Amino acid sequence: MSGSLPVIYLLDLFGVAVFAVSGSLSAGQKRMDLFGVVVVALATALGGGTLRDVILGAHPVFWVADTLYLFVAAGASLVTFVLARFCDFQGRLLKTADAFGLALFTVIGTQKALHLGIAPEVSAIMGVMTGVAGGIIRDMLSGEIPLILRAEIYATASLCGALTLVVLSLLHLPVWMSVIISMLVTLCLRLAALHWRLALPVFPARRERVEP
Amino acid sequence: MSGSLPVIYLLDLFGVAVFAVSGSLSAGQKRMDLFGVVVVALATALGGGTLRDVILGAHPVFWVADTLYLFVAAGASLVTFVLARFCDFQGRLLKTADAFGLALFTVIGTQKALHLGIAPEVSAIMGVMTGVAGGIIRDMLSGEIPLILRAEIYATASLCGALTLVVLSLLHLPVWMSVIISMLVTLCLRLAALHWRLALPVFPARRERVEP
Amino acid sequence: MSGSLPVIYLLDLFGVAVFAVSGSLSAGQKRMDLFGVVVVALATALGGGTLRDVILGAHPVFWVADTLYLFVAAGASLVTFVLARFCDFQGRLLKTADAFGLALFTVIGTQKALHLGIAPEVSAIMGVMTGVAGGIIRDMLSGEIPLILRAEIYATASLCGALTLVVLSLLHLPVWMSVIISMLVTLCLRLAALHWRLALPVFPARRERVEP
Repeated sequence: MSGSLPVIYLLDLFGVAVFAVSGSLSAGQKRMDLFGVVVVALATALGGGTLRDVILGAHPVFWVADTLYLFVAAGASLVTFVLARFCDFQGRLLKTADAFGLALFTVIGTQKALHLGIAPEVSAIMGVMTGVAGGIIRDMLSGEIPLILRAEIYATASLCGALTLVVLSLLHLPVWMSVIISMLVTLCLRLAALHWRLALPVFPARRERVEP
Repeated sequence: MSGSLPVIYLLDLFGVAVFAVSGSLSAGQKRMDLFGVVVVALATALGGGTLRDVILGAHPVFWVADTLYLFVAAGASLVTFVLARFCDFQGRLLKTADAFGLALFTVIGTQKALHLGIAPEVSAIMGVMTGVAGGIIRDMLSGEIPLILRAEIYATASLCGALTLVVLSLLHLPVWMSVIISMLVTLCLRLAALHWRLALPVFPARRERVEP
Repeated sequence: MSGSLPVIYLLDLFGVAVFAVSGSLSAGQKRMDLFGVVVVALATALGGGTLRDVILGAHPVFWVADTLYLFVAAGASLVTFVLARFCDFQGRLLKTADAFGLALFTVIGTQKALHLGIAPEVSAIMGVMTGVAGGIIRDMLSGEIPLILRAEIYATASLCGALTLVVLSLLHLPVWMSVIISMLVTLCLRLAALHWRLALPVFPARRERVEP
């Protein structure tokens, strides 16, 4: 997808697999059947990038151009479906992998938008969208208020990484260096938030008592 | 829409009407007002195809190019709104008609993607998307977990029909023949699932007791 | 955005700000954190126009082409976040401003579609979509059945304004005159509905007792 960095492509596929696993687990908790689980997994893994490409008018959409994304997401979902009987995915490992996926998707989304000549501030938004929209779609399909809008420094970590990449690109650093630094910014912020349970201030709810 | 088969066009309009009726009934159960019902009906009937066309970059979107779809969906919704006072749509008839709509939308979506030169596996996904996305949007607008992700062999029937069409197209059968066969695959699977209450295995929920 | 009328551009930005405030308040009631609030605000303020531009294939999408929309929406959201501690936005003022935003977005959306040479009936739908989709997205992100599908003459007011603009455009009135008249139609209908609590008939619910 990035063209210049084959390692990014492999990491991107890994991110797709991680997000597919998280979508499968979320769908499974709602007692969806096999195919419902795969649908939610695909939407989680490919939804953010699809939204980015559609809004940017960057056709063909990445998984239409390269169907390996589709097979990786579907495969990860099926493996999860089978393995969920035997092991517990919900622990620290999944959250760490998810943080890794968030960092990757954010940076890849931002980089793709910059590469298409999109304005820097819009590119940062596109990076955040690529990183978080999949998780929002997952939660909406599962009938829940999107967790990541409430969770510890999730979208915020994504935004910081995206802004870092935008700034480093304006400074004309080599692409591989800015990509790695920005990825680390998101990853470290998110892992730190998970580890120390950091959180942003919550909206001051003057009226919460009168809400049903 | 298919260009080559006028009968498909008529069947497609029939599918739009059926899905508009199902959207109207779902919205009505949530006590939406007249126009809310029409909005949900339009989203249900046109949402799947719109998503397909937007992701494929196939502009103009089908109902922008041919506004008859719009009028059929709105008309079916208004008629439902009036008739719901007098009769009960929720029975076997609606489910059978819905299975018919699912089969039609799946095959038409797959065929349109193949016709645009999209890769076969992506075309099958586009067919499933055309068939099931409308129902997912309907349930999300109604504040429910999408039923079709849990129901008896719904998306699965759609996938089988789409894959059948893709395989038959690779075998260079005449279009009309592959279209009819694939449609029958989806239709029969779905009707059989309804009749014998068949279902796919549900996700193994090791953790269901701790979920709220 | 309209090209011909700078005043429309300023009003459009005002509409974006109003919708961002309403999105922030809705997210805040769900106890989202700072950035979750901003995400919901952006989706509420920019979602309707984005959907319109994506469906019409009108790239670049308006806020990608002109990032001032982005900054106005984000700024309004942050200001709301800070001020919500001190004052109560939920009263008559917000509903009146929201009616104003609805009228503006509807007319601007319809006008943009007509300007692109879209068929009149589709242009009216695009106007309604621009006006109401943001609010629908807001409610779905907040885990609620979209209020505007149930509320007093909301989408209906939007439709009436859009149809008025379409008819006046076919009569070749000057753009500024048709824009103002259509805007007043939506605004007056919505304000009247709020003031006298007018409502459309609700779907006849024969089966409401058996619904859970």
